[in-house]
Amino acid sequence: MEVQDPQALERVRQRFLQAAFVIDLGIELLELGPGWADTALLVAPRHYQAERFIHAGVQSTLADHCAGSAAATLMSAEQTVVTVEYKINFLKPAVGARLRCRADVLRPGKTLSVAESKVYVDGQSSPVAVALLTLAVIAAPPAR
Amino acid sequence: MEVQDPQALERVRQRFLQAAFVIDLGIELLELGPGWADTALLVAPRHYQAERFIHAGVQSTLADHCAGSAAATLMSAEQTVVTVEYKINFLKPAVGARLRCRADVLRPGKTLSVAESKVYVDGQSSPVAVALLTLAVIAAPPAR
Amino acid sequence: MEVQDPQALERVRQRFLQAAFVIDLGIELLELGPGWADTALLVAPRHYQAERFIHAGVQSTLADHCAGSAAATLMSAEQTVVTVEYKINFLKPAVGARLRCRADVLRPGKTLSVAESKVYVDGQSSPVAVALLTLAVIAAPPAR
Amino acid sequence: MEVQDPQALERVRQRFLQAAFVIDLGIELLELGPGWADTALLVAPRHYQAERFIHAGVQSTLADHCAGSAAATLMSAEQTVVTVEYKINFLKPAVGARLRCRADVLRPGKTLSVAESKVYVDGQSSPVAVALLTLAVIAAPPAR
Repeated sequence: MEVQDPQALERVRQRFLQAAFVIDLGIELLELGPGWADTALLVAPRHYQAERFIHAGVQSTLADHCAGSAAATLMSAEQTVVTVEYKINFLKPAVGARLRCRADVLRPGKTLSVAESKVYVDGQSSPVAVALLTLAVIAAPPAR
Repeated sequence: MEVQDPQALERVRQRFLQAAFVIDLGIELLELGPGWADTALLVAPRHYQAERFIHAGVQSTLADHCAGSAAATLMSAEQTVVTVEYKINFLKPAVGARLRCRADVLRPGKTLSVAESKVYVDGQSSPVAVALLTLAVIAAPPAR
Repeated sequence: MEVQDPQALERVRQRFLQAAFVIDLGIELLELGPGWADTALLVAPRHYQAERFIHAGVQSTLADHCAGSAAATLMSAEQTVVTVEYKINFLKPAVGARLRCRADVLRPGKTLSVAESKVYVDGQSSPVAVALLTLAVIAAPPAR
Repeated sequence: MEVQDPQALERVRQRFLQAAFVIDLGIELLELGPGWADTALLVAPRHYQAERFIHAGVQSTLADHCAGSAAATLMSAEQTVVTVEYKINFLKPAVGARLRCRADVLRPGKTLSVAESKVYVDGQSSPVAVALLTLAVIAAPPAR
């Protein structure tokens, strides 16, 4: 996809860690391009559910933030995105030391974007979760 | 709905805080009944997204865990539930000191349960998020 | 919910049968109010899937059109709605001579509305399907 | 993916037109392989919604049936699949003389399968709709 603004990728990089919950979880940005993003999370015991698999909420947050970053690469400086809704399927128990997520924009839009996120345990080729997300394009808040 | 096992509610109470991520976030159980659960979360700055609203991942985790608890009230001692998938809509920005969640089982099943969760900012009558979840009934892991 | 325009209900009634596929299936409007709609479908053998249950696609179309009508009751004469996405859970096999659907707007919005639809076999109190839908508010096409 | 049973593809072909609603709509099977299916639909005016785009319900039925066929290719003679739930995003207005659908199984399972369907207007490279579906594996009904 075409980047609408050459500085968009840099803006997404700068904004990536402005969400406190994303920092708290430990999500990091790996790579970015127009319409896509790769992120990762070093798994800690606090991320587990009762059976010591990685909690669905951790996978969901990773999928959501990665999709938001992918969609934001196609925005102008005056725009940002917010998640309207998503659906996520958990395909198998997530067990591993690190999660990775890849998000791709399926439909870039002026008012709505649709993206897909796939969450992987590092080193595995088939995803542990797949999500389909709708994001709304909104006016960016003033820079801080 | 009918409770299949009179001790089911007590088991759900005991299991509620066995998920490390749920403890880490600070989710607490308020009330339980056959086919439903009420939970809450004291909001802290670490739960925010970039604009200082409560992060979608926090709301999602609350909705997911509450639905799992509601579904588990209808299980026998040999059963538990695991989330297969869910879809969540974010209806308005979540701003407040405390979130509450109410989950109701829409369809109790032998192999699959379907539940609905509504997330509220404490004191508001209309939800900030609504989720529709599918859970699989699986064999309970050995007690710890 | 408050009707924004007193003639909105009448416009929804007039537009209800402008969708060829809705006429083809046989969906009818029962009742309308601000933010809600009740519709029905007389089931015919052509609506079946392989095991002679009512096909998921029939239930989905009913849920979608009913939600669109519910959301449209809150629109002005210059607006209409279009389905952005939905998620639907099939709760049990749908067997019966007539389906009914009730849709309620959960979040009326200026650009997006969120609605819930429940599909019932006529005479049953628990739904056969439940759907959660996101609709976009768009400019109405010129009247015909 | 590995076919569990060499005759599975033939069984899916035979069962494809056992759903009355699928015949009624005019959906046809193009190609099948282990874990995937390609289907098509010749569009007629009765498939339209009010603005003469192809109705969301038509696209949904195509996506659902194609995913069911893809999942069924991995089943034994004693098994079949039924749709538990799905989520579908409509990416742009569907205008064209023929729809095509491609479904791929993302997670083949013993009790649950997860599949993705993409709906295209014939000749276009980007989909008009994308769906994520959960299917349950059930005992096949007796052959007719």
